[in-house]
Order: sequence, then C-alpha cells, then structure tokens
Amino acid sequence: MPSELRRNPKLMTEEEKVLEANQDFYTALQDLSMEKMEAIWLQESWVRCVHPGWNLLEGWEAVRESWQQIFENTTFVRVAVGIQAVRIENTSAWVCCTEKISTVAEDRFDSVYVQTTNIFERRNGTWYMVHHHASALPAPWPQDPGSDLVQ
Amino acid sequence: MPSELRRNPKLMTEEEKVLEANQDFYTALQDLSMEKMEAIWLQESWVRCVHPGWNLLEGWEAVRESWQQIFENTTFVRVAVGIQAVRIENTSAWVCCTEKISTVAEDRFDSVYVQTTNIFERRNGTWYMVHHHASALPAPWPQDPGSDLVQ
Repeated sequence: MPSELRRNPKLMTEEEKVLEANQDFYTALQDLSMEKMEAIWLQESWVRCVHPGWNLLEGWEAVRESWQQIFENTTFVRVAVGIQAVRIENTSAWVCCTEKISTVAEDRFDSVYVQTTNIFERRNGTWYMVHHHASALPAPWPQDPGSDLVQ
Repeated sequence: MPSELRRNPKLMTEEEKVLEANQDFYTALQDLSMEKMEAIWLQESWVRCVHPGWNLLEGWEAVRESWQQIFENTTFVRVAVGIQAVRIENTSAWVCCTEKISTVAEDRFDSVYVQTTNIFERRNGTWYMVHHHASALPAPWPQDPGSDLVQ
C-alpha cells in the first residue's frame, strides 16, 4: 500500500497494524521489490526464514540473499492470501495464512498452495517481520483463498 | 524430563525454560501421552497447529483431537531433535527445530524429516505451546540432527 494511502497509524488497532505489515510483505513479494522486502524485515542476525522445501535460513543476510535469488529468477508473481489467524502478545505477533502463489519463471507458469506462519515484532510502534515459515499445502486449499493482493 | 529431575526454575534462564518446554513437547510426542501433551499446550481457542501435509488446525479442541488421532494410530515413535534457534520477546518465544521422526504405525516403519516452528507464551512463569508448524524437509537434513530424546 503506498504510504499516502495508509490510514492514520494512531487510529489503527494493533491487529490492523499487524495485518498491514503482513500485507506489505506480500506486496513486496508481488512487486519483486528488494527495497520493500528490506523495509518489512527486521535486519537482525536472529531472524529466520523457511521457503517451501528449503532448509532454514538463519540471519538477515541469508534471508535477504534468498529473496534476491527468488526475485532474480522470477518474472511475474501473484499471491492470493487467505488470513486464517492473527495473534498479538505484547510486542510479538503471528499470522497464519494460506497462499496461492502463481509465478512465471524461465517462461514456465506455475501455481502452488502454501501454508504460512509469519512472526512479527514491534519496534517503536512499527511491526517488522522476524520469521517466515512457508510450506507446501495439498491443493486446493480448504477455504476461501481471499482476494488477490493487487488493488 | 521427570519433574524430580527438573532444575530449580528460579535458577534457570528464560531460554532454558523455553527449551525445557520444547523438550516436554517432544517427550509427550515420544511417550504418545495425551496427558503430557495437554500439559504443554495452552488450551485456548486461538492456538494453532500444522502437522506435515495437514491443513491448519484451529483451536485447542481440534489440536487435541489431532494428537489423539495420531497417538491412536501409532505404536512407536522416536524423535531426534536439532535445535536451530531460540528467540524470546517478552512473554513470547519461538524455537526452530529439525526433527527426524521414526514411527511404527500399522506394522509399517517410517522415517520422516521435518522443519518446525514452535511458538510458546509465558503464563505465571510457565511457558506453554501455542503454535506448532511442522513441514516436510528434504532428507537428509543439513546439519547435526541432535541426540535422541530418550535418556
């Protein structure tokens, strides 16, 4: 969401802020934007990431490189996200999502269904992603896949 | 770990307590013990669980039923756990693990490699599991699988 369209953060609930951070992550993914991906992650050595079928990536440098690699090998991606649960506990939050990821890479069209746990931490009022665990789901997924992120 | 062998909680760091709760979860799994599994989970409607290849389970009742179903269909299970990361943020914590799960079910021996994100919350000084996301890993796993839980 472009910053000029964001609602006034003072009027948003913490849950709305977490969901906005979660959406910012998928917007970064759809836009194949390293700049947006760098803005949503907390750039610490202890952040972690599991892409579907990948081994655990440890630390921001490894996580950043993985996104760079994915973006360089992808020409188009659309993600339909279904939010299943949001839980906030003090300065931590996690979101469970289903994703239908449609990609074009090396002229091949592919569509995968993914189950995701996204963990966020709050710093100075802003929620940052600190953990992303995505794993393959049997297709089709069990519930409304939600709407495509593109407005 | 039998309670008489537990260290004095007052002398343990929060990280040690989280790791103990994490081990209690795997002990419950190995012992096929609903009583131990019930003791480690926070029994709330918002807890969540993803078994490898399953859809998301929502709420303690669904989570409890899944473990009961797994335990009833399993005659033997051993889990080798590798701890990859522990992160504590206020009253939340999460642990990344690799698991090698060896089972005997319906007279068939099976061995699977799993990547796990376990989330805990602290209540009155005790850490409870609130989220378990387990997904299949390509075998063999990339690092020291750790030692078998059985002492």
